[in-house]
Amino acid sequence: MAAAAEDTVEEEVGRVVEQAKELQETAASLIAKSTHDEQSVRQKALSLESSIRRCSSLLDRSNHLAPKLAAKLEEDLQKARCIIADGDASSFLPSKPQGRFLKMFLGPINVRASRKDVQFKVKEEYNSYRDRTALLFLFFPSVLLCLRSWVWNGCLPTFPVQLYQAWLLFLYTGLTLRENILRANGSDIRSWWINHHYCAMIMAVVSLTWEIKGQPNCAQKQRGVQLFLQWAMMQGVAMLLQNRYQRQRLYTRIALGKAKRMDVVWGETAGVDGQLWLLCPILFILQGFEAYVGLQLLRTAYKGVTSEWQVIFCGVLLVFMAVGNFLNTVEILMVKSRF
Amino acid sequence: MAAAAEDTVEEEVGRVVEQAKELQETAASLIAKSTHDEQSVRQKALSLESSIRRCSSLLDRSNHLAPKLAAKLEEDLQKARCIIADGDASSFLPSKPQGRFLKMFLGPINVRASRKDVQFKVKEEYNSYRDRTALLFLFFPSVLLCLRSWVWNGCLPTFPVQLYQAWLLFLYTGLTLRENILRANGSDIRSWWINHHYCAMIMAVVSLTWEIKGQPNCAQKQRGVQLFLQWAMMQGVAMLLQNRYQRQRLYTRIALGKAKRMDVVWGETAGVDGQLWLLCPILFILQGFEAYVGLQLLRTAYKGVTSEWQVIFCGVLLVFMAVGNFLNTVEILMVKSRF
Ligand SMILES: CC(C)(COP(=O)(O)OP(=O)(O)OC[C@H]1O[C@@H](n2cnc3c(N)ncnc32)[C@H](O)[C@@H]1OP(=O)(O)O)[C@@H](O)C(=O)NCCC(=O)NCCS
Ligand SMILES: CC(C)(COP(=O)(O)OP(=O)(O)OC[C@H]1O[C@@H](n2cnc3c(N)ncnc32)[C@H](O)[C@@H]1OP(=O)(O)O)[C@@H](O)C(=O)NCCC(=O)NCCS
Repeated sequence: MAAAAEDTVEEEVGRVVEQAKELQETAASLIAKSTHDEQSVRQKALSLESSIRRCSSLLDRSNHLAPKLAAKLEEDLQKARCIIADGDASSFLPSKPQGRFLKMFLGPINVRASRKDVQFKVKEEYNSYRDRTALLFLFFPSVLLCLRSWVWNGCLPTFPVQLYQAWLLFLYTGLTLRENILRANGSDIRSWWINHHYCAMIMAVVSLTWEIKGQPNCAQKQRGVQLFLQWAMMQGVAMLLQNRYQRQRLYTRIALGKAKRMDVVWGETAGVDGQLWLLCPILFILQGFEAYVGLQLLRTAYKGVTSEWQVIFCGVLLVFMAVGNFLNTVEILMVKSRF
Repeated sequence: MAAAAEDTVEEEVGRVVEQAKELQETAASLIAKSTHDEQSVRQKALSLESSIRRCSSLLDRSNHLAPKLAAKLEEDLQKARCIIADGDASSFLPSKPQGRFLKMFLGPINVRASRKDVQFKVKEEYNSYRDRTALLFLFFPSVLLCLRSWVWNGCLPTFPVQLYQAWLLFLYTGLTLRENILRANGSDIRSWWINHHYCAMIMAVVSLTWEIKGQPNCAQKQRGVQLFLQWAMMQGVAMLLQNRYQRQRLYTRIALGKAKRMDVVWGETAGVDGQLWLLCPILFILQGFEAYVGLQLLRTAYKGVTSEWQVIFCGVLLVFMAVGNFLNTVEILMVKSRF
């Protein structure tokens, strides 16, 4: 009886080891095979890309073509480009370089999702991260400002403000990492919006070292912090609106099953036209306020109320960011209105 | 002639569009096929895993087996486990959950490399990141301390110290992200070492808000900062030694072509035994110094030289980290000496 049991255990273990070896072989050959297949698709995609480029330059040089035909051919080429860039073949093309920022924080890891649906999920998650964030953006500063007037007699205590600034730093780091990841996944996000968040990160670090002075004469000394908080509140509102718009855009895109670069052909702002014209005035007001806060900071420094370098630095940075935001928004609007 | 050229361009474009469509189909079917194949390997791997578990418990209960046979069977099972966990099949198994920290910063992106060689590359890059870091860890504080005695008359100016603290924050964030990524890639790094870096991140943020007082009485008021810098220098030395050890370990592992979990069977410290016994006393000294710095900070706070909460907070945190480091190092040594 004991011998029989021994047999079974031994047999079972033997079988398991056999199976493990088989599995290893299956897995290895599967990997080898799919690497090979991928390689061939990759080759085809690359050669097709260069064919498209050749055709495109041929078309440009063929100025004897009937304009209607030329336009049709141009459109056909665009379609072919879309199929490569947004179809399943895209995952076999070499990805854009991931940028120094991601490399610095994450090392040489690949953050590109190979499936389209995962890429959409990443984008959708980015949007909902921003939604949550926007609410906190509204909530924290308003609580601080309310407590300031009602409880703290017009004088912000240091700790909660620093906590808020640390949160800002954390938040912007997350946003920047996510945006870099989106970009590696084929998003067309302008580099300015990412640079904008780098600036915001730097500002958060600097503001952490910014000594928040107490009584006497709180209201005057803390004018900078107070303006900063008000601006943060307004940014919360803008982010909420912006998110609504971006999400709508994403959904329209998924719903139509149409790919990004196809937008150029099929009408860039399909489905979200109205929202953009509502959003933009608000954005411009906000950007104006951003610049105003920056200038106010510079003024307090100039008038000698506060003399720390942090105040000047944040002031200059805010004005810089406001101007950059404004210019880029105008540029986007101009590009869009051309279609 | 013009008509002929027209023909060629049109034909060429037509061919390109055709090719694009074909490519799309090829890519889609390749993806579908490999998804299907992967699914089947995954199924097999999962069922094999549960077989191994069943065998293992069977073996545990079969106390009538000859001890030698039992040991052999146990070893066989371990081998099977290794093949699954470290062979090519491992990339088909569901990955460990990535942890809240990565999710918070990166969103739902998958950071797991599917090929073993990429995983080694990630580890190797982590080691060289630490190497570069360790040098800076030595360099920055020593420059600050030298300048303090020779140029600044014993009084550290605020800005360079804050710059250093901001760098620390950046550095620890990078380390923590990378360690979490390593873990997702199958590293057995203990959660304590990651928690340790979370603590270090928090400490860096807190130290940024720490007001660095100037004259008069600099030496006394800045005692905390000074100790902190000295400790950082020592940590640089420890990191360099630790890296040498870890790299040696990694190379031994790659060279022997042996997988991680096999270490348990084949001798955990193969090739690096000597180094570990050199490293450990230095680590213990460092951990002692870490605790000493923490206690000194608490003492300055207690004696009322500095009264900021940051000093107390950093003091407690340093003591906590030192104790944790010590306990974990001892635990690792005990585990290793058992083999
Ligand atoms: C003007 C605006 C609404 C246009 O948005 P849009 O129509 O999506 O612009 P584009 O077509 O150029 O977008 C290209 C890509 O960049 C992304 N994007 C655009 N603006 C972005 C922003 N501010 N932050 C992050 N991503 C942005 C889009 O989601 C899109 O991504 P996708 O390729 O993955 O789909 C948007 O750029 C915006 O909100 N800008 C103002 C921001 C601002 O000033 N904020 C601070 C106020 S103080
Ligand atoms: C004691 C020590 C040398 C043991 O190292 P080890 O032999 O690699 O330990 P383990 O076998 O438990 O390692 C398991 C894994 O964790 C990693 N690891 C161990 N200690 C680590 C640490 N401190 N930081 C990062 N990773 C670590 C190893 O590289 C290994 O990774 P892998 O599975 O990808 O190969 C190491 O843990 C150590 O240096 N500890 C002290 C750190 C310290 O106290 N620093 C602060 C001084 S003030």
